[in-house]
Amino acid sequence: MIMSKIFIKSFFGLAMILTAVFVVSAQDLVQARRNLMPVPANVNWKSGRLPVAKNFAVALAGKTDERLKQYAFRVMRRLEGRTVLEFARDFPNDSANANLLIETASTGSAIPQLGDDESYNLEISERQAKITAPTTVGAMRGLETFLQLLEGDKNGFYFPAVSISDKPRYPWRGLMIDSARHFQPMEVLRRNLDAMAAVKMNVLHWHLTEDQGFRVETKKLPELYLQGSDGNFYTQEQVREIIKYAADRGIRVMPEFDMPGHATAWLVSHPEIGSAPGPYKIERQPGIFDPTLDPTNEATYKLLEVFFREMAALFPDKYMHIGGDENEGKQWDANPKIQAFMKANNIKDNHALQTHFNKRLLKFLEKNGKIMMGWDEIFQPDLPKNVVIHSWRGQKALAEAARQGYTGVLSNGYYIDLMFPASQHYVVDPIPADTTLTAEEQKRVLGGEATMWSEWVSPETIDSRVWTRTAAIAERFWSPREVTDVDDMYRRLEIISGQLEELGLTHRKNQAMLLRRLLNNQDITALQTLVSVIEPVKEYRRYQVRPQTMLSPLTGLIDVAQADAPGAREFNKLIQTRAKNKDFQNALIPLSIFFANWKNSGMLLKTQIENAPALTEARQLAVDLQSLGETGAEAAEFFRDGKKSSAEWRDSRLKNLAEIAKQKAGLEFQVIESMKVLVNATAGN
Amino acid sequence: MIMSKIFIKSFFGLAMILTAVFVVSAQDLVQARRNLMPVPANVNWKSGRLPVAKNFAVALAGKTDERLKQYAFRVMRRLEGRTVLEFARDFPNDSANANLLIETASTGSAIPQLGDDESYNLEISERQAKITAPTTVGAMRGLETFLQLLEGDKNGFYFPAVSISDKPRYPWRGLMIDSARHFQPMEVLRRNLDAMAAVKMNVLHWHLTEDQGFRVETKKLPELYLQGSDGNFYTQEQVREIIKYAADRGIRVMPEFDMPGHATAWLVSHPEIGSAPGPYKIERQPGIFDPTLDPTNEATYKLLEVFFREMAALFPDKYMHIGGDENEGKQWDANPKIQAFMKANNIKDNHALQTHFNKRLLKFLEKNGKIMMGWDEIFQPDLPKNVVIHSWRGQKALAEAARQGYTGVLSNGYYIDLMFPASQHYVVDPIPADTTLTAEEQKRVLGGEATMWSEWVSPETIDSRVWTRTAAIAERFWSPREVTDVDDMYRRLEIISGQLEELGLTHRKNQAMLLRRLLNNQDITALQTLVSVIEPVKEYRRYQVRPQTMLSPLTGLIDVAQADAPGAREFNKLIQTRAKNKDFQNALIPLSIFFANWKNSGMLLKTQIENAPALTEARQLAVDLQSLGETGAEAAEFFRDGKKSSAEWRDSRLKNLAEIAKQKAGLEFQVIESMKVLVNATAGN
Repeated sequence: MIMSKIFIKSFFGLAMILTAVFVVSAQDLVQARRNLMPVPANVNWKSGRLPVAKNFAVALAGKTDERLKQYAFRVMRRLEGRTVLEFARDFPNDSANANLLIETASTGSAIPQLGDDESYNLEISERQAKITAPTTVGAMRGLETFLQLLEGDKNGFYFPAVSISDKPRYPWRGLMIDSARHFQPMEVLRRNLDAMAAVKMNVLHWHLTEDQGFRVETKKLPELYLQGSDGNFYTQEQVREIIKYAADRGIRVMPEFDMPGHATAWLVSHPEIGSAPGPYKIERQPGIFDPTLDPTNEATYKLLEVFFREMAALFPDKYMHIGGDENEGKQWDANPKIQAFMKANNIKDNHALQTHFNKRLLKFLEKNGKIMMGWDEIFQPDLPKNVVIHSWRGQKALAEAARQGYTGVLSNGYYIDLMFPASQHYVVDPIPADTTLTAEEQKRVLGGEATMWSEWVSPETIDSRVWTRTAAIAERFWSPREVTDVDDMYRRLEIISGQLEELGLTHRKNQAMLLRRLLNNQDITALQTLVSVIEPVKEYRRYQVRPQTMLSPLTGLIDVAQADAPGAREFNKLIQTRAKNKDFQNALIPLSIFFANWKNSGMLLKTQIENAPALTEARQLAVDLQSLGETGAEAAEFFRDGKKSSAEWRDSRLKNLAEIAKQKAGLEFQVIESMKVLVNATAGN
Repeated sequence: MIMSKIFIKSFFGLAMILTAVFVVSAQDLVQARRNLMPVPANVNWKSGRLPVAKNFAVALAGKTDERLKQYAFRVMRRLEGRTVLEFARDFPNDSANANLLIETASTGSAIPQLGDDESYNLEISERQAKITAPTTVGAMRGLETFLQLLEGDKNGFYFPAVSISDKPRYPWRGLMIDSARHFQPMEVLRRNLDAMAAVKMNVLHWHLTEDQGFRVETKKLPELYLQGSDGNFYTQEQVREIIKYAADRGIRVMPEFDMPGHATAWLVSHPEIGSAPGPYKIERQPGIFDPTLDPTNEATYKLLEVFFREMAALFPDKYMHIGGDENEGKQWDANPKIQAFMKANNIKDNHALQTHFNKRLLKFLEKNGKIMMGWDEIFQPDLPKNVVIHSWRGQKALAEAARQGYTGVLSNGYYIDLMFPASQHYVVDPIPADTTLTAEEQKRVLGGEATMWSEWVSPETIDSRVWTRTAAIAERFWSPREVTDVDDMYRRLEIISGQLEELGLTHRKNQAMLLRRLLNNQDITALQTLVSVIEPVKEYRRYQVRPQTMLSPLTGLIDVAQADAPGAREFNKLIQTRAKNKDFQNALIPLSIFFANWKNSGMLLKTQIENAPALTEARQLAVDLQSLGETGAEAAEFFRDGKKSSAEWRDSRLKNLAEIAKQKAGLEFQVIESMKVLVNATAGN
């Protein structure tokens, strides 16, 4: 018989021990008050609490608008969801008796703009919580802080007394979503905008055209999206809906139309503006491709002028991103007409030709009242100062641009598609502590953007790639430079993670769902153990080790595993702590629990995979997991018995670990270094 | 210190034993082939298998249409998701070499209609799978069967060889969704339509107006939705989108506009057509209310004529539901003008007055080419035969209507909002085996509808109320009468449950999410154990024991607990099996596992609740869970030791069980009867 899932689950429960019931110490409670993310500029904790009960009432005062009213309405519904209490839905004018009073001096700009005042003060006493802000958007930021302050204990829900005065460090705090390589439906954008607002981000950089897709309706040039999108595009009505949805949350929407490279999808319908004769097909592979707009052809500019005029009217934001990255110029080199043009116009190389192209674009944008933004490559001596440099190259490139008078935004260090841990992104600061920029120059560094390039994300998995790591990046952009405690960042990330779920984010709940699908509906406990210690290969290695196209299903184990594998982090922390004092003897219980779980999970999984061919590629990982558990158990025995291991034993185990360290199915164990430490420690002193 | 979640999870893993690894026997494999739901009319299993590999190709032949092409396209994407293999996206004309060939004789009606031919044949050999169907919709049904046949083992994915000839038993297989009491956003409707198609249902009965809301845009009478919906309504464009989405899945959309009762939301903007002077406000309570349209006022008909003309054009389905239920006539009794009208027109009672009203409506509907449908109450001697009776009263009422020449649809027995188990719905047949109806009369029983009344469902929870129980009901409507094995139904329901997740249904994944929210982000393992043995109170008891309004948050434990609590079902089955032969001695291991888990989970949960005030109302349930575990463990000891319990012990335990049996927070343990059996069994013979 197959053991039923319920039975497996019950059996697991048997092992629950009273340790788990242990004590919430006073210190933890104090810590629990520090759940804010991003950390505000100034927080002054006080004593006392404002209780939350059924009649908790909100009032708006000052100069208010519908946006704020709706925002406060939604915040109250989230508060209801958490507390299971019902509150009034209207906001009576009774400021004195309101439990939460929101007072705004002005509404600010209806469509958010760079430099909007987002500051707020939040005062919570035992009688009332009061948010005061110069603008609607400031009040929105304050409302998110307010919600994060909710706590509960035996006596019920409450807000701790506190005095907060807050404002962002950088005015540009963005998330780029690549809707081009993999199209992302409206609900993905909506829920990610909600999540952005929850961590006080204020720019959705919307990557809309690529080699792999042209995703926006244009009424003037309909063949662009009709032939370039496989039918997956945003109508202009949908674009307007997203812009409004974002504005209602204090978020700007800046579109990107990447050119002259990354342009295959344009050329499917308009090969005449390409630098090679074509024909062109929508690109299905990941990577960098040759198709490039022809900057020497007046037809190109004629088309782009029409296009930009239409898009400038559609997108109200002052900034427009023209990409400009990774143009390798191969088609330019190969085209005699282009070469002749360069000679005739004294254009010395492809960089200069791209600058020539950008200057023409700049005219269109300026004519339509827009400020041009582009990736590092557009930063060329000849370009006017009123363009914004978007740096994927790094802080130095950004600082250099600032020094020369350009404003800029950093994305190097925030490439969340590369599967690096949150801690790695967290330490990157658009202006590092050792900057040599003057105060004036520093002002030109506007902030940064996390970039969700979408080669390997589907609507089912994208949330798990964006969150929760982007919350750590959001903190870097908002909070004082000094906020850098990585352990505390991870602690708060876990709390924010839960709160994001109430906004519909699927970063947590889709993992179990996808594991069930992979296991053909068998019990996922063992597979969860495996997934908690492995991560996808990093950077661009996935392309090599597990090649797929843009049409491949993204339902493999590599798509379910996440960065910051929690089981590995926990284990590594345990080993690090113990290694310092070489007291593994005193960690035998937690170590045994880890190792027994790995071993048993690996064993069960091997059998389960026989009924789940979608995991055949991961079978060796199950074998390895069992092996890690066995090696660990053996090491633990040496510590328990106070014996030293033989050099032979250590060698064989280290050799085995080296094998286990190799990627399989594009996945890597994240506990190898700790296991080496442990194995080596069995040698004694 | 607080034990980390990872640590708790790892600790649970420690207990995993090798039993779990046991043997998938040959018998299970045969069983696994019987995963079809609903069970087809004729299945003939053969030997051999059609493997699924990267190049699995589909071809369409015969008279085909875009609907079918898109359906097949989506089915292939689901197959990709399960297998993690990439298939071609186009359907080449190469019928001979296609792995799946779909041949349709005609496209059938583009907008589905009652009585459409939904039959299909499916032949799978080692070389090819072939679906033949007279219509596009038949092929859709066959494609769902095809997907359900997918299996996998050590050698990879495959379809078993089989010959299936299938058609539905009833032509009307519906799900009613009440979008009025709680508005349900578009994505809820879309994903539930997908799920309906997966189990071959073909009618979405869309309940659009109620005391608590008027949910459809009308351009002629805009105040109806503007004042009656709190801004939560479907635009006509959205209605058309849903109709198309449904049609693309072979599903009809029949709207319901409930009248003359259940009409408060109409009267908010149009009190002049009410039977009392008003004013009226949108109703916030659940229940049955007085506001009723005035059937003696010509203004009522004038308005309704305009309304029905517009709705008849908006909804292409031939059938239109006018509700007609639960009109208690209190306002009629109290209105002298109405009383005078009745006297003057020789209308003897309120039933007759409602029939008078219905006959006027009937004219409007007929003028617009529609067939009228209404709840049992409309079935009055005077009503013409061309109306459809929708029975909430039961099979007898339905049979009586059929005998008198009316067609009818059964919903009594399928009220999924009442939280009864799937087994209870499953045994209800629109035409019971002992029917005395003639063959001709039986044809008038068109089928049935599951009804998702939405007093207590939110977009977060509705899927878990509809599914998976509705799949069992869908089987009742489609499969031969003889398909009645309840255990096997539950086995297949579990499999279907996993497959529904790939369509975006949230019935499983939102449970863990909501438990995390309730526990304030603490580890949910213990709470999951509790939830696996409790269910919400049944029928209409929730109104009394845990009153809420239509504006209350639906995030309490009662909203997360589901019908068919799986841990209780498993436990009850174990007890039943063992009780037969009185051999509890041989079940000591599984019993101990259950009881230890209950006890430990209850203990941990009590502590966790101290940091999670949203669960304070459920604290006693944690105490009870621990107590159940302790009582069980004591009983197990008697069996282990071969001793008899004292009458005193049994009395005290049975008394305790009687206390535990009482609802708390609207929730009830589902293991009480089994526990009584166990306690009594300790008395020995």
